[in-house]
Amino acid sequence: MRSRTDFEAWTQARQARVEQVLDALLPPAGSSPARLHAAMRYAALSGGKRVRPLLAYAAGELTAAPEARVDRAAAAVELIHAYSLAHDDLPCMDDDVLRRGRATCHVAYDEATALLVGDALQSLAFQVLAQQPLAAHAATQLDMVHTLALAVGSRGMAGGQAIDLASTGAELTLPELENMHIHKTGELIRAAILLGARCGNPLPPAGSEALDRFSKCAGLAFQVVDDVLDAESDTDTLGKTAGKDARQNKPTYVTTLGLSQARGLAQGLRDDALAALDAFGGEAQRLRELIDFIVLRSR
Amino acid sequence: MRSRTDFEAWTQARQARVEQVLDALLPPAGSSPARLHAAMRYAALSGGKRVRPLLAYAAGELTAAPEARVDRAAAAVELIHAYSLAHDDLPCMDDDVLRRGRATCHVAYDEATALLVGDALQSLAFQVLAQQPLAAHAATQLDMVHTLALAVGSRGMAGGQAIDLASTGAELTLPELENMHIHKTGELIRAAILLGARCGNPLPPAGSEALDRFSKCAGLAFQVVDDVLDAESDTDTLGKTAGKDARQNKPTYVTTLGLSQARGLAQGLRDDALAALDAFGGEAQRLRELIDFIVLRSR
Repeated sequence: MRSRTDFEAWTQARQARVEQVLDALLPPAGSSPARLHAAMRYAALSGGKRVRPLLAYAAGELTAAPEARVDRAAAAVELIHAYSLAHDDLPCMDDDVLRRGRATCHVAYDEATALLVGDALQSLAFQVLAQQPLAAHAATQLDMVHTLALAVGSRGMAGGQAIDLASTGAELTLPELENMHIHKTGELIRAAILLGARCGNPLPPAGSEALDRFSKCAGLAFQVVDDVLDAESDTDTLGKTAGKDARQNKPTYVTTLGLSQARGLAQGLRDDALAALDAFGGEAQRLRELIDFIVLRSR
Repeated sequence: MRSRTDFEAWTQARQARVEQVLDALLPPAGSSPARLHAAMRYAALSGGKRVRPLLAYAAGELTAAPEARVDRAAAAVELIHAYSLAHDDLPCMDDDVLRRGRATCHVAYDEATALLVGDALQSLAFQVLAQQPLAAHAATQLDMVHTLALAVGSRGMAGGQAIDLASTGAELTLPELENMHIHKTGELIRAAILLGARCGNPLPPAGSEALDRFSKCAGLAFQVVDDVLDAESDTDTLGKTAGKDARQNKPTYVTTLGLSQARGLAQGLRDDALAALDAFGGEAQRLRELIDFIVLRSR
């Protein structure tokens, strides 16, 4: 068992690494069209916890994946995440002005630019993921592109956002709320883990299934904790507007279950996630540590 | 030399075919999230000339590509085109209410839905293009995904849109105008042709180069004719708002060159496109016919 300090050093090194990778993959700041490229860099290089890349790196350790390959899988997923934030913050969606302690993209630039930033970041994610080689076989890599596209489309992340829009002001049952978040947040977190793992040696079917179970628990746990933090933290701590869900009359795990039960649910998902990893040994240690990182975070 | 009637029958058959393919690839209308899926179908199944799919099919004939493969390449490109229209028509961009004789997506639905429609159509395009097999080798197919991603990102279509935004009210030189349109329209038309061709037998380097020359001329010719039609047609004929460029104070080939010289430029690009095809025989006949279809169209 490695120490907490060791995990912190691992996390910081991977966060710095994905920042460098993104910096190199994004078009240079001065290159034409300069305003769009500056805004893309603003949206994608604004720090953040980089939870999805961390999960991709940890899953890559599970399959002994070359880290230079995981770099690009992790970056592709994070570019998708950055695109979704730029679009979600737009006035016609969540209309938010603060993100990661800074002005949101459409405030720092303008609406049209923020729209194009999201569009172009999504394209760049697929460009990065399709650049060869990322896996031992081109067919595996194609399948990874297909996995990401499914995870972010109308039956994945974008679909979850549509369900979210339709749910404003509605009371959702727990299964309905879960369905929304499996799509809105869960599918991309799952993709981060599966893509990271696929950069390495193939897992046996039972291992794949266990990893997928872990992914689903991690994705839901992330969202439950997000809802808890939105309800109990202040804007300074979060770096984004706190209490927004309640003000926008959006159903959350806290409004549906209450704060204490929501916290309990996050703990239960953490336990399920850890149990799914029982099939693995020390090679899954970073994934084990990351589930605590997700559940115990304060922003 | 085949007759005009023969070309019309070929065109109509391919237009009907891509409509069927898109219908099958888009999520069913009633499936959850129902409003998003209905809006995606509204945006992508609204007819139109299907110029990009026609070019993909014609390029597929050049390389004896199995038509079932070209179906998906053509559909992927058309899904990207439909996404770009849904986003371009949004209030923060061109703010248009009419497209293909019908209300634009954000008018028929709402802004947030139209935003998600574009996002999800882009993902679906990559999902369709990554579904195996589309080419003889997975590595070729991966390269096709990479080609499309480059063509539509910040150095392709989305970049062209950003240049367009920055050019409103500006006077552009002919090279600046050309640079804008190579990105905004040209790159996706080029991708349609290159992807269609790559579904079949590999071209020798000289053939690839000739096809690429044809693609670039076809893409620019399409835009020059678009500008001419916008200046001289009425809204009923176009099925979209006519005279929009002038009202929005956007530089066009007509404002830069005048109507007569713009028409001459289109003819010149047609001649260059045909000359590029000299290297080919009868297998390039549909591409030859399509350049006239592009230059002589009235909407």
